Amino acid sequence: MELQLAADERIDDLLTDSGLRIIQSREVFSFSLDAVLLSRFATIPKKGRIADLCTGNGVIPLLLSERTEARIDAIEIQPRLADMARRSVAMNGREHHISVIEADLRLYYKEAGNGLYDAITVNPPYMPVTAGDKNENEHYAIARHEIHCNMEDIARACCRLLRTGGKLSLVHRPSRLLDIMESLRRWRLEPKRIQFIHPHAGAEANMVLIEASRDGKPDIKLLPPIMVYNDEGVQIV
Amino acid sequence: MELQLAADERIDDLLTDSGLRIIQSREVFSFSLDAVLLSRFATIPKKGRIADLCTGNGVIPLLLSERTEARIDAIEIQPRLADMARRSVAMNGREHHISVIEADLRLYYKEAGNGLYDAITVNPPYMPVTAGDKNENEHYAIARHEIHCNMEDIARACCRLLRTGGKLSLVHRPSRLLDIMESLRRWRLEPKRIQFIHPHAGAEANMVLIEASRDGKPDIKLLPPIMVYNDEGVQIV
Repeated sequence: MELQLAADERIDDLLTDSGLRIIQSREVFSFSLDAVLLSRFATIPKKGRIADLCTGNGVIPLLLSERTEARIDAIEIQPRLADMARRSVAMNGREHHISVIEADLRLYYKEAGNGLYDAITVNPPYMPVTAGDKNENEHYAIARHEIHCNMEDIARACCRLLRTGGKLSLVHRPSRLLDIMESLRRWRLEPKRIQFIHPHAGAEANMVLIEASRDGKPDIKLLPPIMVYNDEGVQIV
Repeated sequence: MELQLAADERIDDLLTDSGLRIIQSREVFSFSLDAVLLSRFATIPKKGRIADLCTGNGVIPLLLSERTEARIDAIEIQPRLADMARRSVAMNGREHHISVIEADLRLYYKEAGNGLYDAITVNPPYMPVTAGDKNENEHYAIARHEIHCNMEDIARACCRLLRTGGKLSLVHRPSRLLDIMESLRRWRLEPKRIQFIHPHAGAEANMVLIEASRDGKPDIKLLPPIMVYNDEGVQIV
């Protein structure tokens, strides 16, 4: 298949051993460290079925595909991004491993079977909807703000989509820690592993990784923190 | 006043600049690093009124008295420990600064005035009541297990005892993070500052410090982690 790139698009290397590449564009939200850390953090099965919600240009499914033979469904609501994700998957020859599905997760969970997935990952929009959103590029606004889904929507969807014992892994802002965990528990997703990301050892955390288990028992493990930069200012993750 | 020590009691130095000392005994629970870290972590006013619940032998009020002129009420349910705390306060000449009150916090909050305190600290029992408790010394069992109060009792009491905007600071186990925060929020105590304590940089957290604000807005700051030992195995806190 010939690779089609729009005028604003470029190809970035994902710096993996197998040379994965991804289509990005200034006009839509590019992946960042959050997605890379979530891909490493998530507990995923070797076989079975995984979903990545709010997949954007598909960076998380691509990175996960290095770690598992499980079939990965990448769910994205924006046609422009679903199309980029689909072309990135094809460019890497992963069409038989990753399926990009253009869908609204608030509807998708009603159509897909109950307990379809062994694991789900999601890098959702972090910020509530605010008046300032209008000034933003629509693609950025949707990626950043809870315009098309919020944590409650995501937790509800994951409760249905995950099998008992299945794992949901997500990345979010620490400022919203309690709201996120309450949403998860409300939908039978018990937080089990938490890891905070700090820019450096003396700084407040600016990201949090959370793994919840469907119908799990309450018992949280608080993993060693991740520092992005060491004391010499060198990026170490 | 002449200092009276029981046969099993000893006097330990609190290693503070002003030479504070404390009465301890092998027969009851001695203070540990948790209490010291909580005393440093807690936001307390310079003047006004502070309570320390589950005060034990009074280590937290003594340490707080170095940082504030506020009046400190130290609440303890066990007569033996309340007596030790009272004698430690007297030994340090802090009778006009710290009042030891022998009371059950589940009743005390009903008797004390609403909104009496600007700040409350508590180092509560960490563990649910289990069958194994019976084999333990009663003083240890009460300090470790939720025999006389659990987080829900504490949150309820603090909701009543704190003024609007007043701060509750506590130390607990990370494994119970969500249960604790849910109890707090249920009683209008919104978690605002969280700090995890790790034995060393590569280890899971084994303590968590939480500060909640009565009627505060949801917005959590996740402070830099505290590592008890550095990479050379030297205790640094």
